[in-house]
Amino acid sequence: MTYTLYYWDGIPGRGEFVRLALEEAGADYVDAARAPGGTREMLRLMKNAGSPAAPFAPPFLVEGRLVISHVANILFYLGPKLGLAPENEELRYVANGMQLTVTDFVAEIHDTHHPIGVSLYYEEQKPEALRRSADFLSERLPKFLGYFERVLGHNPMGDAHIVGDRLSYVDLSLFQVIEGLRYAFPRAMRSLEANIPALVALHDAVSARPRIRSYLVSDRRLPFNESCVFRHYPELDR
Amino acid sequence: MTYTLYYWDGIPGRGEFVRLALEEAGADYVDAARAPGGTREMLRLMKNAGSPAAPFAPPFLVEGRLVISHVANILFYLGPKLGLAPENEELRYVANGMQLTVTDFVAEIHDTHHPIGVSLYYEEQKPEALRRSADFLSERLPKFLGYFERVLGHNPMGDAHIVGDRLSYVDLSLFQVIEGLRYAFPRAMRSLEANIPALVALHDAVSARPRIRSYLVSDRRLPFNESCVFRHYPELDR
Repeated sequence: MTYTLYYWDGIPGRGEFVRLALEEAGADYVDAARAPGGTREMLRLMKNAGSPAAPFAPPFLVEGRLVISHVANILFYLGPKLGLAPENEELRYVANGMQLTVTDFVAEIHDTHHPIGVSLYYEEQKPEALRRSADFLSERLPKFLGYFERVLGHNPMGDAHIVGDRLSYVDLSLFQVIEGLRYAFPRAMRSLEANIPALVALHDAVSARPRIRSYLVSDRRLPFNESCVFRHYPELDR
Repeated sequence: MTYTLYYWDGIPGRGEFVRLALEEAGADYVDAARAPGGTREMLRLMKNAGSPAAPFAPPFLVEGRLVISHVANILFYLGPKLGLAPENEELRYVANGMQLTVTDFVAEIHDTHHPIGVSLYYEEQKPEALRRSADFLSERLPKFLGYFERVLGHNPMGDAHIVGDRLSYVDLSLFQVIEGLRYAFPRAMRSLEANIPALVALHDAVSARPRIRSYLVSDRRLPFNESCVFRHYPELDR
Protein backbone atom coordinates (compact mmCIF):
# COMPACT_ATOMS: atom_id res chain seq x y z
CA MET A 1 0.00 0.00 0.00
CA THR A 2 1.36 3.41 -0.95
CA TYR A 3 1.39 6.17 1.65
CA THR A 4 0.88 9.78 0.63
CA LEU A 5 2.42 12.44 2.84
CA TYR A 6 0.91 15.91 2.65
CA TYR A 7 2.89 18.90 3.86
CA TRP A 8 3.78 22.45 2.84
CA ASP A 9 6.04 22.68 -0.20
CA GLY A 10 9.61 23.95 0.04
CA ILE A 11 10.42 23.34 3.70
CA PRO A 12 11.46 20.30 5.75
CA GLY A 13 9.40 21.50 8.75
CA ARG A 14 7.27 19.03 10.66
CA GLY A 15 6.82 16.85 7.60
CA GLU A 16 10.47 15.85 7.82
CA PHE A 17 9.91 13.76 10.95
CA VAL A 18 7.57 11.55 8.93
CA ARG A 19 9.80 11.56 5.82
CA LEU A 20 12.77 10.29 7.83
CA ALA A 21 10.76 7.28 9.04
CA LEU A 22 9.48 6.50 5.54
CA GLU A 23 13.00 6.83 4.09
CA GLU A 24 14.69 4.71 6.76
CA ALA A 25 12.14 1.96 6.16
CA GLY A 26 12.44 2.19 2.37
CA ALA A 27 8.65 2.60 2.30
CA ASP A 28 6.67 3.19 -0.85
CA TYR A 29 5.41 6.76 -0.45
CA VAL A 30 4.43 9.82 -2.40
CA ASP A 31 5.58 13.22 -1.15
CA ALA A 32 2.55 15.20 -2.31
CA ALA A 33 4.30 18.58 -2.06
CA ARG A 34 6.73 17.51 -4.82
CA ALA A 35 4.07 15.89 -7.02
CA PRO A 36 2.01 17.80 -9.62
CA GLY A 37 -1.13 19.25 -8.04
CA GLY A 38 -0.14 17.93 -4.61
CA THR A 39 -0.50 21.20 -2.73
CA ARG A 40 -3.90 21.84 -4.30
CA GLU A 41 -5.01 18.37 -3.25
CA MET A 42 -3.70 19.00 0.28
CA LEU A 43 -5.75 22.18 0.63
CA ARG A 44 -8.80 20.40 -0.79
CA LEU A 45 -8.48 17.61 1.80
CA MET A 46 -8.18 20.15 4.63
CA LYS A 47 -11.45 21.79 3.53
CA ASN A 48 -13.16 18.56 2.60
CA ALA A 49 -16.77 18.99 3.56
CA GLY A 50 -17.40 15.26 3.11
CA SER A 51 -14.67 14.01 5.43
CA PRO A 52 -15.08 13.50 9.18
CA ALA A 53 -11.29 13.45 9.48
CA ALA A 54 -10.33 16.70 7.74
CA PRO A 55 -7.05 17.74 9.40
CA PHE A 56 -6.58 21.10 11.08
CA ALA A 57 -3.07 21.43 9.62
CA PRO A 58 -0.43 19.45 7.75
CA PRO A 59 1.43 17.16 7.91
CA PHE A 60 -1.05 14.37 7.40
CA LEU A 61 -0.78 10.93 5.91
CA VAL A 62 -3.27 9.27 3.61
CA GLU A 63 -3.45 5.51 3.17
CA GLY A 64 -6.50 4.42 1.24
CA ARG A 65 -9.53 5.92 3.01
CA LEU A 66 -7.59 6.66 6.17
CA VAL A 67 -6.44 10.23 6.88
CA ILE A 68 -4.08 10.59 9.87
CA SER A 69 -3.06 13.99 11.19
CA HIS A 70 -0.28 15.17 13.53
CA VAL A 71 3.32 13.95 13.43
CA ALA A 72 3.17 11.87 16.62
CA ASN A 73 -0.09 10.22 15.55
CA ILE A 74 1.28 9.40 12.09
CA LEU A 75 4.43 7.91 13.61
CA PHE A 76 2.49 5.95 16.23
CA TYR A 77 0.47 4.45 13.37
CA LEU A 78 3.39 3.88 10.98
CA GLY A 79 6.00 2.81 13.54
CA PRO A 80 4.98 -0.85 13.90
CA LYS A 81 4.29 -1.21 10.15
CA LEU A 82 7.72 0.18 9.26
CA GLY A 83 9.59 -1.77 11.95
CA LEU A 84 10.42 1.50 13.70
CA ALA A 85 8.51 1.04 16.96
CA PRO A 86 9.33 -1.11 20.00
CA GLU A 87 8.03 -4.71 19.80
CA ASN A 88 6.69 -4.42 23.35
CA GLU A 89 3.29 -2.73 23.42
CA GLU A 90 3.88 -0.89 26.69
CA LEU A 91 7.08 0.58 25.30
CA ARG A 92 5.06 1.92 22.35
CA TYR A 93 3.28 4.23 24.76
CA VAL A 94 6.63 5.26 26.21
CA ALA A 95 7.83 6.01 22.66
CA ASN A 96 4.68 8.01 21.96
CA GLY A 97 5.24 10.01 25.16
CA MET A 98 8.81 10.77 24.07
CA GLN A 99 7.62 11.78 20.60
CA LEU A 100 5.06 14.13 22.16
CA THR A 101 7.86 15.72 24.18
CA VAL A 102 9.67 16.21 20.85
CA THR A 103 6.46 17.82 19.54
CA ASP A 104 6.41 20.28 22.45
CA PHE A 105 10.11 21.01 21.98
CA VAL A 106 9.60 21.72 18.27
CA ALA A 107 6.66 24.03 19.04
CA GLU A 108 8.88 26.01 21.43
CA ILE A 109 11.65 26.18 18.82
CA HIS A 110 9.11 27.53 16.33
CA ASP A 111 7.88 30.13 18.78
CA THR A 112 11.37 31.62 19.22
CA HIS A 113 10.79 33.42 15.90
CA HIS A 114 6.98 33.62 16.17
CA PRO A 115 6.12 34.43 19.79
CA ILE A 116 3.13 36.64 18.99
CA GLY A 117 1.32 35.03 16.08
CA VAL A 118 1.71 32.84 13.01
CA SER A 119 -0.24 35.33 10.92
CA LEU A 120 2.51 37.95 11.40
CA TYR A 121 5.96 38.03 9.80
CA TYR A 122 9.06 37.55 11.93
CA GLU A 123 9.97 41.19 11.29
CA GLU A 124 6.66 42.24 12.88
CA GLN A 125 7.49 40.48 16.16
CA LYS A 126 11.25 40.84 16.36
CA PRO A 127 11.58 42.52 19.81
CA GLU A 128 9.41 39.77 21.31
CA ALA A 129 11.37 37.11 19.39
CA LEU A 130 14.63 38.40 20.83
CA ARG A 131 13.25 38.14 24.33
CA ARG A 132 11.65 34.74 23.84
CA SER A 133 14.80 33.34 22.22
CA ALA A 134 16.96 34.51 25.12
CA ASP A 135 14.64 32.69 27.53
CA PHE A 136 14.57 29.65 25.27
CA LEU A 137 18.37 29.42 25.04
CA SER A 138 18.97 29.92 28.76
CA GLU A 139 16.06 27.87 30.17
CA ARG A 140 14.27 25.62 27.75
CA LEU A 141 16.97 24.39 25.37
CA PRO A 142 19.22 22.99 28.13
CA LYS A 143 16.17 21.58 29.90
CA PHE A 144 14.85 19.66 26.89
CA LEU A 145 18.28 18.45 25.72
CA GLY A 146 19.24 17.50 29.27
CA TYR A 147 16.02 15.52 29.60
CA PHE A 148 16.65 13.46 26.46
CA GLU A 149 20.29 12.93 27.42
CA ARG A 150 19.15 11.64 30.81
CA VAL A 151 16.52 9.32 29.30
CA LEU A 152 19.13 7.92 26.89
CA GLY A 153 21.52 7.33 29.77
CA HIS A 154 18.82 5.49 31.76
CA ASN A 155 17.65 3.20 29.00
CA PRO A 156 18.16 -0.25 30.53
CA MET A 157 18.74 -1.59 26.99
CA GLY A 158 21.69 0.78 26.49
CA ASP A 159 22.09 4.39 25.38
CA ALA A 160 22.21 3.71 21.64
CA HIS A 161 18.43 4.19 21.44
CA ILE A 162 15.96 6.38 23.31
CA VAL A 163 13.41 3.56 23.81
CA GLY A 164 14.02 -0.18 23.73
CA ASP A 165 16.91 -1.98 22.07
CA ARG A 166 16.48 -1.04 18.43
CA LEU A 167 16.06 2.00 16.23
CA SER A 168 12.68 3.71 16.55
CA TYR A 169 11.08 6.70 14.91
CA VAL A 170 11.86 8.70 18.07
CA ASP A 171 15.60 8.25 17.42
CA LEU A 172 15.10 9.59 13.89
CA SER A 173 13.18 12.58 15.24
CA LEU A 174 15.91 13.37 17.77
CA PHE A 175 18.46 13.30 14.92
CA GLN A 176 16.34 15.86 13.06
CA VAL A 177 15.95 18.10 16.13
CA ILE A 178 19.73 18.19 16.60
CA GLU A 179 20.20 18.98 12.89
CA GLY A 180 17.62 21.75 13.07
CA LEU A 181 19.04 23.25 16.25
CA ARG A 182 22.56 23.29 14.79
CA TYR A 183 21.17 25.17 11.80
CA ALA A 184 19.09 27.64 13.84
CA PHE A 185 21.34 28.24 16.85
CA PRO A 186 24.92 27.24 15.90
CA ARG A 187 26.62 29.25 18.64
CA ALA A 188 24.32 28.05 21.42
CA MET A 189 24.64 24.45 20.26
CA ARG A 190 28.43 24.60 20.10
CA SER A 191 28.56 25.50 23.76
CA LEU A 192 25.90 22.96 24.78
CA GLU A 193 26.92 19.85 22.89
CA ALA A 194 29.66 18.88 25.34
CA ASN A 195 26.86 18.22 27.86
CA ILE A 196 24.91 15.84 25.61
CA PRO A 197 27.39 13.22 24.37
CA ALA A 198 24.85 10.39 24.14
CA LEU A 199 22.45 12.51 22.07
CA VAL A 200 25.26 13.57 19.74
CA ALA A 201 26.33 9.93 19.35
CA LEU A 202 22.73 8.99 18.56
CA HIS A 203 22.59 11.77 15.97
CA ASP A 204 25.81 10.51 14.35
CA ALA A 205 24.65 6.90 14.33
CA VAL A 206 21.39 7.86 12.60
CA SER A 207 23.18 9.94 9.96
CA ALA A 208 25.49 6.99 9.21
CA ARG A 209 22.66 4.55 8.47
CA PRO A 210 22.83 3.60 4.78
CA ARG A 211 19.30 4.65 3.77
CA ILE A 212 19.44 7.88 5.79
CA ARG A 213 22.88 8.70 4.36
CA SER A 214 21.68 8.35 0.79
CA TYR A 215 18.47 10.22 1.57
CA LEU A 216 20.40 13.15 3.05
CA VAL A 217 22.39 13.68 -0.16
CA SER A 218 19.37 13.16 -2.44
CA ASP A 219 17.22 15.97 -3.81
CA ARG A 220 14.32 14.58 -1.74
CA ARG A 221 15.96 16.10 1.34
CA LEU A 222 15.08 19.78 1.48
CA PRO A 223 17.54 22.23 3.03
CA PHE A 224 16.53 24.23 6.11
CA ASN A 225 15.48 27.77 5.29
CA GLU A 226 13.81 30.82 6.81
CA SER A 227 10.26 29.66 6.04
CA CYS A 228 10.72 26.58 8.21
CA VAL A 229 10.28 25.74 11.87
CA PHE A 230 14.07 25.86 12.27
CA ARG A 231 15.25 29.30 11.11
CA HIS A 232 18.67 30.82 11.34
CA TYR A 233 18.43 34.45 12.46
CA PRO A 234 21.90 35.23 13.89
CA GLU A 235 20.45 37.91 16.18
CA LEU A 236 18.36 35.26 18.00
CA ASP A 237 21.35 32.99 18.66
CA ARG A 238 23.49 33.29 21.77
CA MET B 1 -6.39 -2.15 38.50
CA THR B 2 -6.13 1.29 40.09
CA TYR B 3 -4.83 4.18 38.02
CA THR B 4 -2.82 6.94 39.64
CA LEU B 5 -2.92 10.36 38.00
CA TYR B 6 -0.04 12.71 38.75
CA TYR B 7 -0.44 16.43 38.17
CA TRP B 8 0.30 19.76 39.84
CA ASP B 9 -1.75 20.40 42.95
CA GLY B 10 -4.37 23.17 43.10
CA ILE B 11 -5.20 23.64 39.41
CA PRO B 12 -7.39 21.79 36.91
CA GLY B 13 -4.89 22.47 34.10
CA ARG B 14 -4.00 19.70 31.68
CA GLY B 15 -4.69 17.02 34.28
CA GLU B 16 -8.40 17.81 34.03
CA PHE B 17 -8.69 16.28 30.56
CA VAL B 18 -7.67 12.94 32.07
CA ARG B 19 -9.78 13.39 35.21
CA LEU B 20 -12.91 13.94 33.14
CA ALA B 21 -12.41 10.63 31.32
CA LEU B 22 -11.76 8.74 34.58
CA GLU B 23 -14.81 10.35 36.20
CA GLU B 24 -17.17 9.71 33.27
CA ALA B 25 -16.12 6.04 33.27
CA GLY B 26 -16.46 5.72 37.05
CA ALA B 27 -12.88 4.38 37.03
CA ASP B 28 -10.97 3.45 40.16
CA TYR B 29 -8.25 6.10 40.35
CA VAL B 30 -6.11 8.03 42.78
CA ASP B 31 -5.57 11.73 42.20
CA ALA B 32 -2.03 11.94 43.58
CA ALA B 33 -2.10 15.73 44.00
CA ARG B 34 -4.86 15.37 46.62
CA ALA B 35 -3.30 12.36 48.38
CA PRO B 36 -0.72 12.65 51.20
CA GLY B 37 2.80 12.82 49.77
CA GLY B 38 1.48 12.72 46.21
CA THR B 39 3.34 15.77 44.93
CA ARG B 40 6.61 14.56 46.44
CA GLU B 41 6.11 11.19 44.74
CA MET B 42 5.36 12.97 41.43
CA LEU B 43 8.63 14.90 41.58
CA ARG B 44 10.50 11.73 42.51
CA LEU B 45 9.08 9.89 39.49
CA MET B 46 10.06 12.74 37.19
CA LYS B 47 13.66 12.55 38.40
CA ASN B 48 13.72 8.77 38.67
CA ALA B 49 17.18 7.69 37.61
CA GLY B 50 16.07 4.08 37.39
CA SER B 51 13.16 4.60 35.00
CA PRO B 52 13.48 4.66 31.22
CA ALA B 53 10.08 6.35 31.08
CA ALA B 54 10.59 9.32 33.41
CA PRO B 55 8.20 11.99 32.09
CA PHE B 56 9.32 15.46 31.04
CA ALA B 57 6.29 17.04 32.70
CA PRO B 58 2.96 16.12 34.30
CA PRO B 59 0.28 14.97 33.81
CA PHE B 60 1.24 11.33 33.71
CA LEU B 61 -0.59 8.15 34.58
CA VAL B 62 0.81 5.19 36.44
CA GLU B 63 -0.72 1.73 36.19
CA GLY B 64 1.45 -0.92 37.78
CA ARG B 65 4.89 -0.63 36.16
CA LEU B 66 3.61 1.45 33.29
CA VAL B 67 4.20 5.22 33.26
CA ILE B 68 2.39 7.09 30.49
CA SER B 69 3.04 10.78 29.83
CA HIS B 70 1.16 13.45 27.86
CA VAL B 71 -2.59 13.97 27.89
CA ALA B 72 -3.24 12.64 24.37
CA ASN B 73 -1.11 9.55 24.99
CA ILE B 74 -2.85 8.82 28.31
CA LEU B 75 -6.25 9.18 26.69
CA PHE B 76 -5.28 7.06 23.67
CA TYR B 77 -4.27 4.35 26.14
CA LEU B 78 -7.23 4.71 28.50
CA GLY B 79 -9.93 5.39 25.90
CA PRO B 80 -10.62 1.79 24.86
CA LYS B 81 -10.33 0.51 28.45
CA LEU B 82 -12.83 3.09 29.70
CA GLY B 83 -15.26 2.68 26.81
CA LEU B 84 -14.48 6.23 25.70
CA ALA B 85 -12.82 5.56 22.33
CA PRO B 86 -14.37 4.58 18.99
CA GLU B 87 -14.84 0.82 18.48
CA ASN B 88 -13.34 1.08 15.02
CA GLU B 89 -9.54 1.09 15.10
CA GLU B 90 -9.11 3.53 12.23
CA LEU B 91 -11.39 5.99 14.00
CA ARG B 92 -9.13 5.76 17.04
CA TYR B 93 -6.39 7.44 15.02
CA VAL B 94 -8.88 10.07 13.91
CA ALA B 95 -9.77 10.63 17.58
CA ASN B 96 -6.09 10.88 18.50
CA GLY B 97 -5.57 13.44 15.73
CA MET B 98 -8.49 15.50 17.09
CA GLN B 99 -7.11 15.25 20.63
CA LEU B 100 -3.71 16.46 19.41
CA THR B 101 -5.43 19.45 17.82
CA VAL B 102 -6.98 20.09 21.25
CA THR B 103 -3.44 19.85 22.69
CA ASP B 104 -2.18 22.51 20.26
CA PHE B 105 -5.20 24.70 21.01
CA VAL B 106 -4.59 24.45 24.76
CA ALA B 107 -0.90 25.32 24.30
CA GLU B 108 -1.89 28.46 22.39
CA ILE B 109 -4.42 29.37 25.10
CA HIS B 110 -1.64 28.99 27.69
CA ASP B 111 0.71 31.16 25.69
CA THR B 112 -1.73 34.10 25.66
CA HIS B 113 -0.55 34.84 29.22
CA HIS B 114 2.96 33.37 28.82
CA PRO B 115 4.24 34.35 25.36
CA ILE B 116 7.87 34.82 26.44
CA GLY B 117 8.64 32.08 28.92
CA VAL B 118 7.20 29.78 31.58
CA SER B 119 9.97 30.75 33.99
CA LEU B 120 8.68 34.34 34.11
CA TYR B 121 5.56 35.66 35.85
CA TYR B 122 2.66 36.99 33.79
CA GLU B 123 3.44 40.47 35.10
CA GLU B 124 6.92 40.21 33.58
CA GLN B 125 5.53 39.62 30.07
CA LYS B 126 2.33 41.64 30.09
CA PRO B 127 2.93 43.86 27.02
CA GLU B 128 3.72 40.75 24.98
CA ALA B 129 0.72 38.95 26.47
CA LEU B 130 -1.58 41.79 25.43
CA ARG B 131 -0.30 41.56 21.87
CA ARG B 132 -0.41 37.77 21.69
CA SER B 133 -3.93 37.65 23.16
CA ALA B 134 -5.21 40.16 20.61
CA ASP B 135 -3.85 37.97 17.83
CA PHE B 136 -5.23 34.85 19.50
CA LEU B 137 -8.73 36.29 19.84
CA SER B 138 -8.90 37.66 16.31
CA GLU B 139 -7.15 34.84 14.43
CA ARG B 140 -6.64 31.61 16.34
CA LEU B 141 -9.70 31.31 18.58
CA PRO B 142 -12.22 31.58 15.71
CA LYS B 143 -10.03 29.29 13.58
CA PHE B 144 -9.84 26.47 16.15
CA LEU B 145 -13.48 26.74 17.23
CA GLY B 146 -14.63 26.96 13.62
CA TYR B 147 -12.60 23.85 12.81
CA PHE B 148 -14.20 21.77 15.56
CA GLU B 149 -17.66 23.09 14.67
CA ARG B 150 -17.09 22.03 11.04
CA VAL B 151 -15.81 18.58 12.01
CA LEU B 152 -18.86 18.07 14.23
CA GLY B 153 -21.15 19.12 11.40
CA HIS B 154 -19.48 16.67 9.01
CA ASN B 155 -19.55 13.64 11.28
CA PRO B 156 -21.47 11.11 9.17
CA MET B 157 -22.73 9.56 12.43
CA GLY B 158 -24.35 12.87 13.47
CA ASP B 159 -23.17 16.02 15.21
CA ALA B 160 -23.70 14.80 18.78
CA HIS B 161 -20.11 13.53 18.90
CA ILE B 162 -16.85 14.69 17.34
CA VAL B 163 -15.81 11.17 16.25
CA GLY B 164 -18.02 8.13 15.68
CA ASP B 165 -21.49 7.53 17.11
CA ARG B 166 -20.82 7.53 20.83
CA LEU B 167 -19.20 9.62 23.53
CA SER B 168 -15.38 9.68 23.38
CA TYR B 169 -12.70 11.31 25.46
CA VAL B 170 -12.38 13.97 22.75
CA ASP B 171 -15.95 15.11 23.45
CA LEU B 172 -15.05 15.44 27.14
CA SER B 173 -11.95 17.47 26.27
CA LEU B 174 -13.96 19.81 24.05
CA PHE B 175 -16.38 20.37 26.93
CA GLN B 176 -13.43 21.35 29.12
CA VAL B 177 -11.96 23.70 26.50
CA ILE B 178 -15.29 25.54 26.21
CA GLU B 179 -15.51 25.77 30.02
CA GLY B 180 -11.97 27.10 30.23
CA LEU B 181 -12.44 29.61 27.42
CA ARG B 182 -15.63 30.94 29.02
CA TYR B 183 -13.67 31.47 32.22
CA ALA B 184 -10.64 33.07 30.57
CA PHE B 185 -12.25 35.12 27.82
CA PRO B 186 -15.93 35.65 28.73
CA ARG B 187 -16.46 38.67 26.47
CA ALA B 188 -14.83 37.09 23.42
CA MET B 189 -16.76 33.86 23.93
CA ARG B 190 -20.10 35.65 24.28
CA SER B 191 -19.65 37.15 20.85
CA LEU B 192 -18.37 33.92 19.28
CA GLU B 193 -20.73 31.30 20.61
CA ALA B 194 -23.51 32.10 18.17
CA ASN B 195 -21.21 30.71 15.46
CA ILE B 196 -20.61 27.38 17.15
CA PRO B 197 -24.03 25.95 18.01
CA ALA B 198 -23.02 22.29 17.63
CA LEU B 199 -20.02 22.71 19.95
CA VAL B 200 -22.16 24.48 22.54
CA ALA B 201 -24.75 21.70 22.32
CA LEU B 202 -21.97 19.11 22.78
CA HIS B 203 -20.72 21.04 25.81
CA ASP B 204 -24.23 21.09 27.31
CA ALA B 205 -24.79 17.38 26.64
CA VAL B 206 -21.52 16.48 28.38
CA SER B 207 -22.31 18.63 31.42
CA ALA B 208 -25.72 16.94 31.74
CA ARG B 209 -24.31 13.39 31.90
CA PRO B 210 -25.02 11.98 35.38
CA ARG B 211 -21.46 11.17 36.40
CA ILE B 212 -20.05 14.42 35.00
CA ARG B 213 -22.83 16.41 36.69
CA SER B 214 -22.05 14.94 40.09
CA TYR B 215 -18.32 15.31 39.52
CA LEU B 216 -18.70 19.00 38.66
CA VAL B 217 -20.37 19.77 42.00
CA SER B 218 -18.00 17.58 44.02
CA ASP B 219 -14.89 18.86 45.76
CA ARG B 220 -12.82 16.71 43.38
CA ARG B 221 -13.50 19.32 40.68
CA LEU B 222 -11.06 22.19 41.16
CA PRO B 223 -12.11 25.70 40.17
CA PHE B 224 -10.19 27.55 37.47
CA ASN B 225 -7.71 30.06 38.85
CA GLU B 226 -4.79 32.26 37.83
CA SER B 227 -2.15 29.54 38.23
CA CYS B 228 -3.84 27.42 35.56
CA VAL B 229 -3.67 27.14 31.78
CA PHE B 230 -7.00 28.99 31.59
CA ARG B 231 -6.58 32.33 33.38
CA HIS B 232 -8.95 35.24 33.57
CA TYR B 233 -7.09 38.50 33.10
CA PRO B 234 -9.78 40.99 31.98
CA GLU B 235 -7.20 43.10 30.15
CA LEU B 236 -6.44 40.17 27.80
CA ASP B 237 -10.09 39.62 26.87
CA ARG B 238 -11.72 41.39 23.95
